[in-house]
Amino acid sequence: MASVTREGSPTYVPPAERIATFDNDGTLWSEQPLYFQFLFLIEQVKLAAPKHPGWKNNPAFKALVANDQAALAKHQKELLELIAVANSGMTVEAYDETIRAWLVTAKHPRFQRLFTDLVYQPQLELLAYLRANGFKTLIVSGGTIEFMRPWSEKAYGIPPEQVIGSSQVVTYQLQNGKPALVRQPKLDFIDDGPGKPVGIYRGIGRRPILAFGNSDGDLQMLQYMAAGSGARLALLVHHDDAEREFAYDRQSKVGKLDKAWDEAVAKGWTVVSMKRDWKQVYPAAPR
Amino acid sequence: MASVTREGSPTYVPPAERIATFDNDGTLWSEQPLYFQFLFLIEQVKLAAPKHPGWKNNPAFKALVANDQAALAKHQKELLELIAVANSGMTVEAYDETIRAWLVTAKHPRFQRLFTDLVYQPQLELLAYLRANGFKTLIVSGGTIEFMRPWSEKAYGIPPEQVIGSSQVVTYQLQNGKPALVRQPKLDFIDDGPGKPVGIYRGIGRRPILAFGNSDGDLQMLQYMAAGSGARLALLVHHDDAEREFAYDRQSKVGKLDKAWDEAVAKGWTVVSMKRDWKQVYPAAPR
Repeated sequence: MASVTREGSPTYVPPAERIATFDNDGTLWSEQPLYFQFLFLIEQVKLAAPKHPGWKNNPAFKALVANDQAALAKHQKELLELIAVANSGMTVEAYDETIRAWLVTAKHPRFQRLFTDLVYQPQLELLAYLRANGFKTLIVSGGTIEFMRPWSEKAYGIPPEQVIGSSQVVTYQLQNGKPALVRQPKLDFIDDGPGKPVGIYRGIGRRPILAFGNSDGDLQMLQYMAAGSGARLALLVHHDDAEREFAYDRQSKVGKLDKAWDEAVAKGWTVVSMKRDWKQVYPAAPR
Repeated sequence: MASVTREGSPTYVPPAERIATFDNDGTLWSEQPLYFQFLFLIEQVKLAAPKHPGWKNNPAFKALVANDQAALAKHQKELLELIAVANSGMTVEAYDETIRAWLVTAKHPRFQRLFTDLVYQPQLELLAYLRANGFKTLIVSGGTIEFMRPWSEKAYGIPPEQVIGSSQVVTYQLQNGKPALVRQPKLDFIDDGPGKPVGIYRGIGRRPILAFGNSDGDLQMLQYMAAGSGARLALLVHHDDAEREFAYDRQSKVGKLDKAWDEAVAKGWTVVSMKRDWKQVYPAAPR
């Protein structure tokens, strides 16, 4: 760290360029058995069902109600359409309230804790350490901006304007003369894989000097960061701790770590073992 | 200002929420006789012409070479296509260098000064005053992020990550194994009119409490800002100083101020007269 922050050091980096980008799902908080945002979205579909009587014949909706994973896997396209409809048409403020309400009540199926309690203690310490050394810390996630921004500041100390993510199309309208931003059933940007360097470029216009991920969806962000000149640090979390968290990598449907792992080995990137390297996984007390 | 920054004041706003958004063209720097970015883009078309022999039969290109304004107006679509082609295919870094090189050489046709010298002195003072009072100052412009970011920090003290603008589609590619972001001939987002509140939402996820514009393209940003609760400040520059700068409003093709002016009068927004209210327009010495 001193080599980057000490003026006169050959690898000194001025504060404005000390940019560190973190993936969220699986890097800053857990992502199993399913991305937490997906659990939220599915619940929204169930809640919206009474307004959509036609859904009872929809194969994805039937699979959802029956919790039939095989049928759900077969009808992913229909499921995504249901999700898009269920989470659209409202203002961004109304959606924000829905997310906040879910986060303070919904519990993780295994740990029976609020999802926002399932952030990683060592990462909280790393974020604080980086900021204490003049870094700007940002989230760059495949999750959507509206799902992360309501809690990123409290949980991570990362304010909403430093959260880059996927986004849905929103349109500006006057509703009874009052300005409103209304969610449309269409994705605007997918901030995953090759979308991550694009999201970083579009959002901040600087190349990070540190990037932390955990899956193949972070590979391009790590490549892009590592290709800059000067001091660079590329990191991956390896989920190898079935006891305290989850163990998954090359074969996982959620958070698959395969190509990025090979590249980490080839390039000498740092792979952090949750089991060996993390003394504690989650904060002890609710935050 | 004290009512917003003094703790205990009924209209106190915590620093994190002190967001001020500024339009760029016509609000922070001049925009006549044509948006400066447009002058740059036209020059890029001329420079690219040798690589596109077919252009010599293109009506927009012929009009451009002949400086035939009437014909250009008639072939706007063709002109935009030429611009898109001329400014695509390169990496974002190469494009950034092209812009920087233009900015240190090209001169304004009337003032014969670098374009970056044609920023408004009173606005520089306002930006500094806001930041001294804990505000975060942002640009929200119809111009593109790549055209503004190379000079916004030096000119305005606004770093690249606080510049929200229109953007072109860029794609992530490996070129001989080296990561590159390559510009595609397609607009990604138009940050103008109703796009401005969307750009603000997408970029920072907070509603500003102060917004400054100068044309109808800023109307929705001002409406959106003004619709929040608590202390609010909506401002417009009125270009009424033909001697020191330019005089234009309701009939202008560039920076038309018509609907936004009516709304300013109806809502009691502040309209700043360049002629009466600004002691100095441009900084005296090159910056």
